[in-house]
Amino acid sequence: MAADVQPAPPFGDRLASAVRRRESAIVVGLDPDPARLWPGGSPLPGDLAPADAAAAAVADHCRRVLDAVAPACVAVKLQSASFERLGAPGQEALAATVAHAGDLDLLVLLDAKRGDIDVSAASYANAAYGSTATPWGPVAGTGADAVTVAPYMGRDSLRPFVTLAADRGAGTFVLVRTSNPGAADLQELLLADGEPVWAHVARMVAEIGAEPTSAAPGATLDAVGAVVGATAPERIARLRELMPRTPFLLPGVGAQGGRVEDLAPAFAPGPGGALITASRSIVGAGAAAGGDPAAAALRAAEALRATAAAL
Amino acid sequence: MAADVQPAPPFGDRLASAVRRRESAIVVGLDPDPARLWPGGSPLPGDLAPADAAAAAVADHCRRVLDAVAPACVAVKLQSASFERLGAPGQEALAATVAHAGDLDLLVLLDAKRGDIDVSAASYANAAYGSTATPWGPVAGTGADAVTVAPYMGRDSLRPFVTLAADRGAGTFVLVRTSNPGAADLQELLLADGEPVWAHVARMVAEIGAEPTSAAPGATLDAVGAVVGATAPERIARLRELMPRTPFLLPGVGAQGGRVEDLAPAFAPGPGGALITASRSIVGAGAAAGGDPAAAALRAAEALRATAAAL
Repeated sequence: MAADVQPAPPFGDRLASAVRRRESAIVVGLDPDPARLWPGGSPLPGDLAPADAAAAAVADHCRRVLDAVAPACVAVKLQSASFERLGAPGQEALAATVAHAGDLDLLVLLDAKRGDIDVSAASYANAAYGSTATPWGPVAGTGADAVTVAPYMGRDSLRPFVTLAADRGAGTFVLVRTSNPGAADLQELLLADGEPVWAHVARMVAEIGAEPTSAAPGATLDAVGAVVGATAPERIARLRELMPRTPFLLPGVGAQGGRVEDLAPAFAPGPGGALITASRSIVGAGAAAGGDPAAAALRAAEALRATAAAL
Repeated sequence: MAADVQPAPPFGDRLASAVRRRESAIVVGLDPDPARLWPGGSPLPGDLAPADAAAAAVADHCRRVLDAVAPACVAVKLQSASFERLGAPGQEALAATVAHAGDLDLLVLLDAKRGDIDVSAASYANAAYGSTATPWGPVAGTGADAVTVAPYMGRDSLRPFVTLAADRGAGTFVLVRTSNPGAADLQELLLADGEPVWAHVARMVAEIGAEPTSAAPGATLDAVGAVVGATAPERIARLRELMPRTPFLLPGVGAQGGRVEDLAPAFAPGPGGALITASRSIVGAGAAAGGDPAAAALRAAEALRATAAAL
């Protein structure tokens, strides 16, 4: 008989145990701009093409940021756009950053906001946390632990992510109520039943998270999460009511105006129930405060961690 | 004085003139699966890693498909997911395919369905049809003529695409009413004003297309387009009413069940007003009918072209 193959633990369990182990609910966001990297990077060979040089510098920057802030964080959120705009070398930088995050015991959330018909959704899921079968052997994806997805195309556009995630112990965070001002344009529209669109999407997320293909019996947290902007705190209690077992990914703290103090209802399910993600307010803390960017970033992340821990 | 710099013609004009010149409103969709490429590809070196081999084979397949069907088409729609899942080599295959499409005088629509907050949306726009400024020089994006985007995050998530597109003579196709069954889950929800979500999104698309940052005075067609599934033909007349100057990209013909004969209202604005996109029903025509895949694909594309021309 073959040796027992241990299935991956469900994402909700992995998340809860990571938050306990690292004593942090803070996710550092990386959206590196090649023109605004931390000073003092490793020297580059002089003969690189712009894309290769920029991607190498970005990877080096991301490594330094992660080294600095990892002690205060449970995960890193990688903005896919920042890497994609550097083409193939950007994908190499993304892969290097994912690998380094793993070495630091950080979970990796790929912020890609994908959404497409079933066949293409399956391709995106494989790109994020699966692999693609080819006649020349399997091609591994990015190796993320979770990916963000957009709900506009409906359930059949979400299920390929959720199904593959269940196999891999990975997670899927669905945009529900985002942190940007334009969120009001569609997400806040009132439906004929008197509820806003986001409430309907929240129900859909809770339902998909409870389906047999994604749910783990006995798990406290679902593997299907929700992106809920910290800039609309008055909605968070209602969103938690609609999605009692859903991990919340909370962007919008800091530069976008959200306050950690307003987010307590999000944390109701206990460890892993809510993650606070901050990008510029951590990575750019040195530029705002002056001094060593690494020390300032760690201080900013530690301050967020302490505030969240006190909720 | 510097020589006069000619601004790029507006996307609507480029689209209309391409449809006239090529006498076709057909867009061939490429979503290459490395396990299901056309037989008879160019031999590959034996020592490639799986991702490199698969990406090279995909690029070769895409080149052959384009060579076969270009005479019947005006554009190619590239499914980003299919290339992304092959990592950095997949981006090289994407770039090679874009370049070859250009050589064949085909417009390139990057089917990426992106959508994010403003900063990240600008990065995605640069990745699609712009370039990224870096201290090492500019890094060119994919070089697409248009990209598909998702509307869930609202106007401020769409504007960076639309604004850059206006500078570049490029286009932005917003998902309005998609072709998949799950489209009903969110897009068909009835709002308090009695209209479905898709009608509201359609109004938003028409408004953004008419804003000074995107509109070209005197152009017949806007630069902001709409993705409208051919699987819901009963909605097309209403969508055209709501978006009179908007180019429609119509997926869902063939494998998904849509019929070209039902799409006449989409074509009301004249050449470029509607593009019919078909992937499996063109590229896979040989597998269904037997025989040479290239000849079968061209026949399928020609048949679509003739049916559309008769509308």
